[in-house]
Amino acid sequence: MTNKIDYYFDFSSPYGYLGSKRIETIAGKHKLAINWHPILLGAVFKVSGQAPLTTFPLKGEYALMDFERSAREHGIPYQAPKTFPIAAVAASRAYYWINENPDTAIAAKATDFVHAVFEAYYTKQQNISKPEVLTAIVNALGLDSNTLAEALGQQPVKDRLKKAVDDAIARGVFGSPMMYYGDEPFWGSDRIDQLENWIEKGGW
Amino acid sequence: MTNKIDYYFDFSSPYGYLGSKRIETIAGKHKLAINWHPILLGAVFKVSGQAPLTTFPLKGEYALMDFERSAREHGIPYQAPKTFPIAAVAASRAYYWINENPDTAIAAKATDFVHAVFEAYYTKQQNISKPEVLTAIVNALGLDSNTLAEALGQQPVKDRLKKAVDDAIARGVFGSPMMYYGDEPFWGSDRIDQLENWIEKGGW
Repeated sequence: MTNKIDYYFDFSSPYGYLGSKRIETIAGKHKLAINWHPILLGAVFKVSGQAPLTTFPLKGEYALMDFERSAREHGIPYQAPKTFPIAAVAASRAYYWINENPDTAIAAKATDFVHAVFEAYYTKQQNISKPEVLTAIVNALGLDSNTLAEALGQQPVKDRLKKAVDDAIARGVFGSPMMYYGDEPFWGSDRIDQLENWIEKGGW
Repeated sequence: MTNKIDYYFDFSSPYGYLGSKRIETIAGKHKLAINWHPILLGAVFKVSGQAPLTTFPLKGEYALMDFERSAREHGIPYQAPKTFPIAAVAASRAYYWINENPDTAIAAKATDFVHAVFEAYYTKQQNISKPEVLTAIVNALGLDSNTLAEALGQQPVKDRLKKAVDDAIARGVFGSPMMYYGDEPFWGSDRIDQLENWIEKGGW
């Protein structure tokens, strides 16, 4: 048994956003911690031979419709982003810098940062790949955006995200969201019910 | 409102098999007819730019595991086929010949044929692309396998399947299973709960 869920996602993934809301509900109900793992699907897809969902004929159109339908089903606010997809490199680097910060007051804001970035992109049509958008998010959380901006250019911060992506691929992550409860993988926000069933039954 | 579910699938698709069991439960509960539409994913993938699930690194391994896990979750018998994937051309042509047969005693066996083919492939490790396997299935249903074998070589029977695939693509079908309730599409056996929610609420 484990007391946490690993949640791998790309900030640019609509299902990553939808799942981020639903996983909080499940985690709260079962008193589980969530370990957030922002990754870059572009790098993952190079290994797994895939391409972004919305680039496929037929499947892409279905996906654009389904993002909104699935959001409505679960009462999750959703506005299709104006620019999509975007590169989530800066937001992802920022997450690890915040989450692993030696200053625990900063590190404590990590989960709030995840939700704030997702909400900026998927409910306010803000382009989270733009530095000024990240700055506003970070400031609103009471963090120092100047310190963060400086950190984002440093090699160890860049390397940390690269390691996160490499580790995810080594574990078998190929999509967003991809969740692990212990060693058990679940792919897709539409598998959160299955994940909860697994948690409740202790597997089957 | 509609009184039927259109169920598009490839006989070679494990999720098509899993969904075929679950959709029967939902349809029975809500007194809906199921219109079965066997198609060939190979032809669909040429249009939608995709490839078989199990050919992708990481994703393929997950899928092989998940077929069995999802079957266990829903109490559905499942044995991974020995030969996978296979060409479901003959079985699919046979379905339309049976379902649209002027002899209503033959046409009445269409749904039984769908389930018998799936069960041969996914619970008995029989290669449903082999004529002798189809012959045994058809005979067990009380149909004349010689008449069917003769029909499968005729151009109108070949054309019927081609039309089914073309019609599916024109409608937007890109995977297996893909279901429509009225005009509302649902992709994937893991979306059957969502489909049922949609039926119960009349949409949202």
